[in-house]
Amino acid sequence: SDIKNESIIDSDPLPSWHDNKIKKDIISFVKNSVEEDSSGFIKEENRIATFDNDGTLWSEKPFYFQLFFALDRIKSLTKEEPELSNDTLVQKLLSENPKILSSLTHEDLIEIIMKTHSGMTTEEFEKIVSEWIRASKHPRFNKPFNEIIFQPMLELIDYLNDNNFKVYIVSGGGVEFMRPWVEETYGIPKEQVIGSSIKTRFGIIDQKPVLERLPEIDFINDKEGKPIAINRVIGKKPVFSAGNSDGDLQMMQWTDSNNESFILYVHHTDGKREWEYDRKSSVGRFDKALDIAKTNDWNIVDMKNDWKVIYPFKH
Amino acid sequence: SDIKNESIIDSDPLPSWHDNKIKKDIISFVKNSVEEDSSGFIKEENRIATFDNDGTLWSEKPFYFQLFFALDRIKSLTKEEPELSNDTLVQKLLSENPKILSSLTHEDLIEIIMKTHSGMTTEEFEKIVSEWIRASKHPRFNKPFNEIIFQPMLELIDYLNDNNFKVYIVSGGGVEFMRPWVEETYGIPKEQVIGSSIKTRFGIIDQKPVLERLPEIDFINDKEGKPIAINRVIGKKPVFSAGNSDGDLQMMQWTDSNNESFILYVHHTDGKREWEYDRKSSVGRFDKALDIAKTNDWNIVDMKNDWKVIYPFKH
Ligand SMILES: [Ca+2]
Ligand SMILES: [Ca+2]
Repeated sequence: SDIKNESIIDSDPLPSWHDNKIKKDIISFVKNSVEEDSSGFIKEENRIATFDNDGTLWSEKPFYFQLFFALDRIKSLTKEEPELSNDTLVQKLLSENPKILSSLTHEDLIEIIMKTHSGMTTEEFEKIVSEWIRASKHPRFNKPFNEIIFQPMLELIDYLNDNNFKVYIVSGGGVEFMRPWVEETYGIPKEQVIGSSIKTRFGIIDQKPVLERLPEIDFINDKEGKPIAINRVIGKKPVFSAGNSDGDLQMMQWTDSNNESFILYVHHTDGKREWEYDRKSSVGRFDKALDIAKTNDWNIVDMKNDWKVIYPFKH
Repeated sequence: SDIKNESIIDSDPLPSWHDNKIKKDIISFVKNSVEEDSSGFIKEENRIATFDNDGTLWSEKPFYFQLFFALDRIKSLTKEEPELSNDTLVQKLLSENPKILSSLTHEDLIEIIMKTHSGMTTEEFEKIVSEWIRASKHPRFNKPFNEIIFQPMLELIDYLNDNNFKVYIVSGGGVEFMRPWVEETYGIPKEQVIGSSIKTRFGIIDQKPVLERLPEIDFINDKEGKPIAINRVIGKKPVFSAGNSDGDLQMMQWTDSNNESFILYVHHTDGKREWEYDRKSSVGRFDKALDIAKTNDWNIVDMKNDWKVIYPFKH
C-alpha cells in the first residue's frame, strides 16, 4: 500500500545509496545484528565497527590530505627558517607538483611528518591543525578538506551509531592530525580514533605539565598495524570494517574471522564526480586486496553505480 | 524534615563511604560537573575519568596479583618443560616467598612477564587468564582475586557512570591480563582499559588470522607512560583521576592541569582490614606523590577512617 511504501521511504537509513544489492545487504546485516531472535544477533558490547579514513571517509587525491597540511606547515616553517628551503625534500614539497608529491616514498613521507609534526606540545599541535582545517581549501573543489567527505559513508556511520554500534576510525593518518576535526565532521568522538603516532615526552615546563611531540615514529597504523592497534586499543574483534586499499587487507581479514561480520570495500570507480583508480595508484592502491575481496565475496562499493551523491555539498 | 533526610539517605551514591569531607567533596564535584548553570560544569564528552588498578581498585599485597598469575603460569610451564626450573629467576618465583617475590627488580618482573605472557595467540592468552581468574584464590582471604576489590571504589565508578563520565582503567598491569575480567568485575568495558603491553605479530595460521604474543615489551604504562598513553588512546585530558602510588603522579599532574578536575589518592592506612603501607613499600610506594598530594591539597582517602567497608564480601 501507499502507506507502507511511504513509511519505507521515510525510514530509509541510507538515502544517498542506490537501492542496489550492497545497500540491501548492509541493512539486512544491521537489522539481523540487533534482532535478538536472529541467528545474526550481535550483543551490543560487541558491535565494534572500524573505518579507514583516507579514501574511505574522505577523498585522498591528488594526494593524502595530510600532505597538504604538511606542505602548508613547510611553507610557514620556511618563512621562520629560510635555510630549510635548501633541503632537497623540502624543495620537492614546495614544487607543489602533484606528480612529484604523489610519488614520494614511504621514507620521504616519514621524514616530512617528522619535520612538520614535531617540535611542539600536543596542545599547540591541536591548535595548528584546528586552524589549518578551518582555513585551507581543496584545490579542485575550493572547499575545506573536511567537506570532501562521502555523504553515503556519513549515512552509514549514523545508521551504525543509531543501532548501537561503536564506530572507530582506524587510519594510517596521524591520530593527532585527525582528532581536532573528526567529531564535528563524522560525529565520531576523539577517543574512537586510532591512527599512526609519533612519540611524545612528558615534562613540566613553567610549572605546567606538557606532552612534547618528538621527531620519532611511535607506530605506523597500516597493514598488519591495523589489527595490532585494534587489539591493543579496543581489545575486541570488529564485526564491521570499511576500507579502500591494500593497507586495509589485514584489518579486513581480522574482522572476517569473527563469527558475524561485514566487510565493506570502497572502490573508486567514479572519475567524473570523484577519482577513478585502483591497482596502479600510488595513493590508495587497491590491487591484492581487490582480488582477495572478490575471491572472498566481500562487499565492494562501486562508487559510480552505488552512490547517488558523493559529497554533502552536492547533496 | 524527615522526608528530606530520608530522600538523601535513599539516594546516597556512596553508601560505603563515611560522611567525611572527601565523600562530600566527591559528590559536590560530580553534582557541579553535570549542572549546566554551575561554574564547575563539564561537557559530557569531556567527562573522562582514569583509574589506576593495583592498590586503587583491588589490593596489591603481598605482591601484585598479576605476579600470582605469572607464578601459576611458571608452575604449569615447568611441568611441560622441566629444564625451566634450572633458571635462577624461576627458582625465586617458585620459592613462593613473599619477601623474595615483593623484592623482585623491575628487570626481573619484565623477564617473568616475557616468559609467562608470550608464546601464544591473543585468543589463547585470553582463555588462560579467564580460567585462572575463575580458579585461583588469594591466600589471605581464600577468595578469587577479582573479589579482593574495594567496595567504595565500585560505588564511585557506578556513581561516575551514572553521571555520564566515561571511566577508564589506566594501569601498569598488562592490558590483556585485565580485559578478560574487568567488565564483569568493575562494569568497565574492555575498550576502556589502558595498560602495559607486549608486542604482537599478525599472521595467518591454518588460514586463520591470529595475533601472536611476542617476548618483547611494547609499552610500560607507568609514571610518564600514563599521561602519554591517555593522550594517545583517549586524546582528551581526564577531569577525574584516582591512584595510590608514585606511579600515578604524572597522571595526576596531567589531570590537575585541566580547568576542572578531581584528584583522588587512596592511602593504605588499614593494616587490620587490608594492609598498611606507603613510603617504604616496594609494591605501591606512596612517597614523593604523598608529599606533592599534601602540598597541592589533593584528596587523599584514609582507608581506615573514610571507608565503612573494604571488600564486597564483607559488605
Ligand atoms: Ca585508505
Ligand atoms: Ca597502583
